[in-house]
Amino acid sequence: MNHPQPLSAHTLMVRDLLARRRPGYGLEAPFYLSEELFRADMEHIFGAHWIFVAVEPQIAEAGDYVTIDMGSRSILIVRSDDLQIRAFHNVCRHRGSRLCADRQGVLGNIVCPYHQWSYDLTGKLVHAKHMPDDFDFSDLNLRPVHVRSLLGLIFICLGDAPPQDFEQMATAMTPYLAPHQLQQCKVAAQVDLVENCNWKITMENNRECYHCLATHPELTVSLYEHGFGYKPDAHNADKLQGFQEILERSHARWEAMGLPSAEIDTLDERVTGFRTQRLPLDRCGQSQTLNTEVASKKLLADFVDPALGGLSFWTQPNSWHHFMSDHIISFSVLPITVGKTLVRTTWCVHKDAVEGVDYSVENLTAVWNATNDQDRRLVEESQIGIASGAYEPGPFSPFIEGLLDKFCNWYVQRLSALVR
Amino acid sequence: MNHPQPLSAHTLMVRDLLARRRPGYGLEAPFYLSEELFRADMEHIFGAHWIFVAVEPQIAEAGDYVTIDMGSRSILIVRSDDLQIRAFHNVCRHRGSRLCADRQGVLGNIVCPYHQWSYDLTGKLVHAKHMPDDFDFSDLNLRPVHVRSLLGLIFICLGDAPPQDFEQMATAMTPYLAPHQLQQCKVAAQVDLVENCNWKITMENNRECYHCLATHPELTVSLYEHGFGYKPDAHNADKLQGFQEILERSHARWEAMGLPSAEIDTLDERVTGFRTQRLPLDRCGQSQTLNTEVASKKLLADFVDPALGGLSFWTQPNSWHHFMSDHIISFSVLPITVGKTLVRTTWCVHKDAVEGVDYSVENLTAVWNATNDQDRRLVEESQIGIASGAYEPGPFSPFIEGLLDKFCNWYVQRLSALVR
Amino acid sequence: MNHPQPLSAHTLMVRDLLARRRPGYGLEAPFYLSEELFRADMEHIFGAHWIFVAVEPQIAEAGDYVTIDMGSRSILIVRSDDLQIRAFHNVCRHRGSRLCADRQGVLGNIVCPYHQWSYDLTGKLVHAKHMPDDFDFSDLNLRPVHVRSLLGLIFICLGDAPPQDFEQMATAMTPYLAPHQLQQCKVAAQVDLVENCNWKITMENNRECYHCLATHPELTVSLYEHGFGYKPDAHNADKLQGFQEILERSHARWEAMGLPSAEIDTLDERVTGFRTQRLPLDRCGQSQTLNTEVASKKLLADFVDPALGGLSFWTQPNSWHHFMSDHIISFSVLPITVGKTLVRTTWCVHKDAVEGVDYSVENLTAVWNATNDQDRRLVEESQIGIASGAYEPGPFSPFIEGLLDKFCNWYVQRLSALVR
Repeated sequence: MNHPQPLSAHTLMVRDLLARRRPGYGLEAPFYLSEELFRADMEHIFGAHWIFVAVEPQIAEAGDYVTIDMGSRSILIVRSDDLQIRAFHNVCRHRGSRLCADRQGVLGNIVCPYHQWSYDLTGKLVHAKHMPDDFDFSDLNLRPVHVRSLLGLIFICLGDAPPQDFEQMATAMTPYLAPHQLQQCKVAAQVDLVENCNWKITMENNRECYHCLATHPELTVSLYEHGFGYKPDAHNADKLQGFQEILERSHARWEAMGLPSAEIDTLDERVTGFRTQRLPLDRCGQSQTLNTEVASKKLLADFVDPALGGLSFWTQPNSWHHFMSDHIISFSVLPITVGKTLVRTTWCVHKDAVEGVDYSVENLTAVWNATNDQDRRLVEESQIGIASGAYEPGPFSPFIEGLLDKFCNWYVQRLSALVR
Repeated sequence: MNHPQPLSAHTLMVRDLLARRRPGYGLEAPFYLSEELFRADMEHIFGAHWIFVAVEPQIAEAGDYVTIDMGSRSILIVRSDDLQIRAFHNVCRHRGSRLCADRQGVLGNIVCPYHQWSYDLTGKLVHAKHMPDDFDFSDLNLRPVHVRSLLGLIFICLGDAPPQDFEQMATAMTPYLAPHQLQQCKVAAQVDLVENCNWKITMENNRECYHCLATHPELTVSLYEHGFGYKPDAHNADKLQGFQEILERSHARWEAMGLPSAEIDTLDERVTGFRTQRLPLDRCGQSQTLNTEVASKKLLADFVDPALGGLSFWTQPNSWHHFMSDHIISFSVLPITVGKTLVRTTWCVHKDAVEGVDYSVENLTAVWNATNDQDRRLVEESQIGIASGAYEPGPFSPFIEGLLDKFCNWYVQRLSALVR
Repeated sequence: MNHPQPLSAHTLMVRDLLARRRPGYGLEAPFYLSEELFRADMEHIFGAHWIFVAVEPQIAEAGDYVTIDMGSRSILIVRSDDLQIRAFHNVCRHRGSRLCADRQGVLGNIVCPYHQWSYDLTGKLVHAKHMPDDFDFSDLNLRPVHVRSLLGLIFICLGDAPPQDFEQMATAMTPYLAPHQLQQCKVAAQVDLVENCNWKITMENNRECYHCLATHPELTVSLYEHGFGYKPDAHNADKLQGFQEILERSHARWEAMGLPSAEIDTLDERVTGFRTQRLPLDRCGQSQTLNTEVASKKLLADFVDPALGGLSFWTQPNSWHHFMSDHIISFSVLPITVGKTLVRTTWCVHKDAVEGVDYSVENLTAVWNATNDQDRRLVEESQIGIASGAYEPGPFSPFIEGLLDKFCNWYVQRLSALVR
């Protein structure tokens, strides 16, 4: 396609929808319902950006692998013998069989279950019976996928030209993340939740805490009500000021300990948009647990003070993370179909923490298992309402839905740049 | 769209199919199978006509509500504090969440489960936290839906300009329906049945009793075989004459009691097409029960004579009703998808009738639960056969499939008038 | 459509895909995934070729019938009172109801369950109540489907002009098949297996035994490893030569007994492509059983020698068969949807064989029930991998995937000839 072509009806439809989007308002219904828009999302958003998919503790040893499904795609992520992390399309180059059906496991070589074509952990085809003597094995290595680890957070990019500003995110985030030493952790629990909604509704729900107070009794034990935006009025000036003082005092204390805490927000300003901030937690201030005390007595890294608040890290288009003194929670949002989305939640603790002694899985996961399920109900009701034909985008609260607005801004910008 | 536009390929396809329909024959297969035609049905039939959806006894008190699903749409019907019946799109104006997920219940205000935006029972937005001081609440009231009660039978119209001839139906039907006092009833039972077929197959099945004798042993205890059309021949002249005499004698008796009984049929002559007739019942002649005696000893209204036959009332496109001396049965047909349809059957008895004393739900519902399930099997076999690629519309019997022909006539007329 | 029309976008897409196919390589992904291609397959492959669907022992007596589903189509195959085999679209000419819902049974007349329109077993409409006196019954006979039995193997063709070279296949195959006397058999077992893949993946899997050694421990007890192609090398020259000698010696013996054994292969050379060969079996050499001995002590026809190897018969596009001394296995592959396929396996033994005395169903079916389920897993993994977006057609082994290549050749040729 080296010559200019007239835009297709599909492209015109998408561009028209994108152009109509009103800042400060939600997206129109087709963005959540249309098969065509979903294909556009899979091609231009999930097919061209850095997508958070796993944490290094899932593949700590040579030969460890995980498989990741996004829409109909299947990706194999493996740690090779040189301890590098490598990612491939999970598809045999012979007849197209999926190579690994399990979600995780350990491999010597990657052997196709169909005709035993075998690839080493660098993706090189090393064995294929019954092929001619002049058969060129080097033509049929596994198709690689770009992969990067940001101090243990594994991102992949399916596009040929991954966004280069991943480096800038890595540079900015390294001082924030490094002290928690995710690579020295183990996975204590991982839970997959399927939500019957479009992936953007899942993400939008994550980008505001307007709904938290009425919905999440467990989560709001530790979250300060005023930490995620609030409309100021005559009655709450004292409370807002009070939270601001706690925030500043906490930041000063943490920065002095070598823990960067200040907000960085590039959510709708960059291709690889992200945001971070270390936020104080209420009550004991230690962890997102039911009693706000640490869930794991064995603190991460060399921490001795359990009251480090929660370092939050949000990335466009599909993840968020909370790094605390005792554990790290990561959320990866992976579309299944236009109206079905996987939320994979991973809890990591220090690799030397002992289950039953230092932590219990039940206590560790209680808050977010409850919260995720409450969110599932909300987003599914949104999907149903948006599908009902009467939905029109409504206005966002400028006080408490600002990050949601930035998610929509980012999405519209990226799709506008890529749909041709 | 104020300037003329060329017809789309879709519109041309639909118009061509409509134009090809042969009177006295069935509809072509795409009318039952095509997603495009289903969208046309939802827009032009269910989106623009008066649709029967509920009975007033379901929402007798202020705050009572029901929700109605039609295709992907969800409608909220509520009795407001002034005892008016009001209908709204069941969708929050903020982020589009469905407001009420339950099929029925009681409300003070209508509070969105997501961010607690609150509407009063007239649909007025009365509370929305975190919105700016200059936020105009009046812009974001619930989107209303036209609603009318015909002496307790609740119809809605999703279109902007509801057919005006509802008034003529109301005027004509009032003398027939009023004596039964549906508004003084309570719901004794309601059963939802999902049929794996297009909604028109469900309706077509209702519009002929050609299949009754071989299919419905329970229903035909009380139904006269000759009450719904019959081919006359040398052998059945006496029987046809006999039924005619019963009909005339019954009508004379009922009219003398102030119960209009004569047929009115405008099924394919008006936008709001309907038909009514009071028909004698066989044996005891009291009710559509297994023994043809009344199911409820507490008769409706001020009736003292239980032998009032059955006043049938059929409406285009989606309902039929049988009003007897002791109970009223209403059927509402609501499309789910192109190949899946809900049949909601509601049995009402006098509101002072006492379960276990005056009636039992089992006896009350026995005939139509059996009949509906027998019909389900028939319509599902029709859907499968019509989908099989070899189906061609066949001829209707002019003697016993006349009302079915009128259903098809009405459908083709209405779609032809509205598809542009 | 007697005047030339411009090719539709759909046709151009299909023709482009067909033209791009590289000999010796697999088909591109849309052939397995696209709804449009599936419709093309149902119209031009399953709608225009001879499709194997049943064996005569399933309908041995007058009135016996089976129904066959292909995609959304339903076909009724019945033995009429004159003992002819007849096939009809399983759809009533009145309102389109499916006539027979069961997979098999016995009929006097074919009576529609809806309004009891009745057809005799030649498809003639003989009864339709309530129709006018001048109603022309002869217009509404059942729509016939072409049907042929090749010595008990029943093929149907939905097209108006069935391929005429069925005769040549029948002539060529008769000497091979006749000695086994399928028409003197009974069905001992029939198993339906649904595979979540496109029908062509099921067929392609059947057309190579590259996967057998690692996948099918039960089947490879009796199959010679070298009977389906092998890459020659320095180490296996003796073994290949050994198999060749066994093959020649066996053929000489069987031909002397009046059992033609030589290969005929027209798989990609004719419209009604087929292949046959009688192949020696390993060990006892009698049957495809776990111990390679006959499964039924009552041999077929007048056989006395149980060691007759296995006469294999493969037909395009949807069947394969193994005729042994004691039983016959037939496989019919029937598409359900683009990604779902039925494999119906039928085991026949001599009609005088007594279950529990001459054979047990468990022993008879053990090898192929296990093999089919192993294949199901393989083809489902292929479907998933091919759907993953990263699949590209890979090269076939010229030594062991030659028949697979011929399947693809045939398919591309046939679709190219018919898609306009």
